[in-house]
Amino acid sequence: MTERDDKPEEDYVLTPWEVKGSIDYEQLIKKFGTEKIDEELLSRIENIAGELHFMLRRGIFYSHRDMKWILDEYEKDNKFVLYTGRGPSGHTHVGHLMPWIFARWIQERFDVELYFQLTDDEKYLFNFDMELEDTHDFALENALDIIAIGFDPDKTHILIDTDDIDTLYPLALKAAKRINFSTVKAVFGFDNSTNVGGIFYTSIQSAPCFLPSELEDRKVPVVIPCGIDQDAHFRVTRDIAETLGYYKPALLHNKLAPSLDGSGKMSASIPNTTIFTTDTGDEVDRKIDEAITGGRISAKEQREKGGNPDICAVQNYRFYLFEEDDRRVAEIADRCRSGDLLCGECKGLLKDNIKSFLERHQKRREKAREQLQDFLFEN
Amino acid sequence: MTERDDKPEEDYVLTPWEVKGSIDYEQLIKKFGTEKIDEELLSRIENIAGELHFMLRRGIFYSHRDMKWILDEYEKDNKFVLYTGRGPSGHTHVGHLMPWIFARWIQERFDVELYFQLTDDEKYLFNFDMELEDTHDFALENALDIIAIGFDPDKTHILIDTDDIDTLYPLALKAAKRINFSTVKAVFGFDNSTNVGGIFYTSIQSAPCFLPSELEDRKVPVVIPCGIDQDAHFRVTRDIAETLGYYKPALLHNKLAPSLDGSGKMSASIPNTTIFTTDTGDEVDRKIDEAITGGRISAKEQREKGGNPDICAVQNYRFYLFEEDDRRVAEIADRCRSGDLLCGECKGLLKDNIKSFLERHQKRREKAREQLQDFLFEN
Repeated sequence: MTERDDKPEEDYVLTPWEVKGSIDYEQLIKKFGTEKIDEELLSRIENIAGELHFMLRRGIFYSHRDMKWILDEYEKDNKFVLYTGRGPSGHTHVGHLMPWIFARWIQERFDVELYFQLTDDEKYLFNFDMELEDTHDFALENALDIIAIGFDPDKTHILIDTDDIDTLYPLALKAAKRINFSTVKAVFGFDNSTNVGGIFYTSIQSAPCFLPSELEDRKVPVVIPCGIDQDAHFRVTRDIAETLGYYKPALLHNKLAPSLDGSGKMSASIPNTTIFTTDTGDEVDRKIDEAITGGRISAKEQREKGGNPDICAVQNYRFYLFEEDDRRVAEIADRCRSGDLLCGECKGLLKDNIKSFLERHQKRREKAREQLQDFLFEN
Repeated sequence: MTERDDKPEEDYVLTPWEVKGSIDYEQLIKKFGTEKIDEELLSRIENIAGELHFMLRRGIFYSHRDMKWILDEYEKDNKFVLYTGRGPSGHTHVGHLMPWIFARWIQERFDVELYFQLTDDEKYLFNFDMELEDTHDFALENALDIIAIGFDPDKTHILIDTDDIDTLYPLALKAAKRINFSTVKAVFGFDNSTNVGGIFYTSIQSAPCFLPSELEDRKVPVVIPCGIDQDAHFRVTRDIAETLGYYKPALLHNKLAPSLDGSGKMSASIPNTTIFTTDTGDEVDRKIDEAITGGRISAKEQREKGGNPDICAVQNYRFYLFEEDDRRVAEIADRCRSGDLLCGECKGLLKDNIKSFLERHQKRREKAREQLQDFLFEN
């Protein structure tokens, strides 16, 4: 179990509930025992999908477990099912959309089913000040954003833990019976003060890995696109899946979207460093205006010496989410480095992209209220 | 938390999952911090009920928590709701019926609602070799015995954990958030090897304590008649109830029915020392024939010196369950002590009582199949 100890000697913290500091993503591959998404895997994905999503091209999705086996099975007509999720502790911010946008691309290109879990129970258990009514309300709000991303209503099933517990609980029990306190202590860093709901919770996050097999009454391969911070849960799931008669779920891990102040992961708990899907144009302007850039102390100095796009939250936003065109991203970086592009203009370009994205998203999000019932899981 | 440490210096073990040795019931009152059911309480109960159930007269129900307050409220027209339960790890034996028969008497005499929880999840989590399908099947089987006891179908609601988890889970989460690993370690003796489902489980057993209040949208007093071995769960519940906005549940504790071999608690896992509600007359005869008595080595010696009914499993069965008439119990004991009644004849009397009870019970149990839907909890 030593390789599972998430207590870092590193200067960052990464658990499903806490992300702090500057994460060494390459090191996580070794630490967690995952595999790098390499050229061979990329070209196999490209062959099937007909293109590579920009998040794959740019190494935002950068690590995986068992994806080669998943593609082998896919090529033998044994399709996988997608599973991803969200902890509804607040409104959706654009960082959350990253893996969802990617999952939608996979759904479309591979023509597969998707289970989307909204863990209102988790967020209640791990946030002292939240009531279950709050997290359930946020689950319904977040569901609108999921739908707005454009998933296929016939192939997408949104699970809300407390609403769908009748389906999830028997599967969670099977997992829970085979996970002991030692394991969750080592994997999640729990101690004697952790509440018993939190201790049990990982079983609930395991349950959707088994659900497609139960519904189809055969072993169904499952692929989980998720932030690398969620890998801990699925390491536990993978350890018990075969004993329970299921395949180990495969994973595709993304790096975490950075915050606008450059301090780490985009977080809903620091609203000013994060753009929410419900933000107005004025709010976008204000937040981008305040974003930390790689610019110089004065326009004059920047024209002379150039800026540094590598440490710039504005460029990061563009890279992670708001500019699909690789050449355009590179061109802007070049113009920044050369001193040709100043921060004001550069921020203006990003604002335009974000605002046009949000305008489209917010329209779809309103329409989603009528589509909600089509997307909610029904047993 | 010291007073909660269930690891005994005593020569017996008593937890919700293990009962071993000769239990010192008076000591448990001190250890758990409960109150003895005293003359004053008995006479208040008798005043309301119009009689005293033999299990109260004989001190089988012998300990309580907060029953004086419950009667105060009752006399102010604030009725309580009954809650009891059963872990469905096998078929029902007559020892299980003891608190149910008592609960039925309370329901009738006090005209109150009853929630009956069948914890198929618990028995799955704590029995390595059982599948959830097994414990769920036993839950349905056990429900027939519950119905056969004669509860009021309009006032009785049978909860099966995995079937009613949609109702129980949100309430269990509220409990779980306020119970940490330290507490369950101290109260139940859990350690690092305990599975995370078992760690969480006590929250599920707490949930029905809160359910009546949720359904009626006001604080409802709850009384739990149960074996003293279950007190541990409700000590935990009582510690958190008021924080959650509920009354602490009150309890009525019974001593545990002894086994036919005199070795401890009647247990479904040692079938030959236990009479099941589905046993045939021949099985009853065989098991009672093999029961350990307080008799002498020979009929001749017994006629001369008399037997000892105080250590006799046959007399215990009569005392705990199969002879409501106190004078008859005493008369048989006297005849035993005097050497007038030999074990064969005495066993014959008990067999007759058990067989006539089972004949009636088994008829009702068959009829219960048609009544099951009326008794199952519906939200």
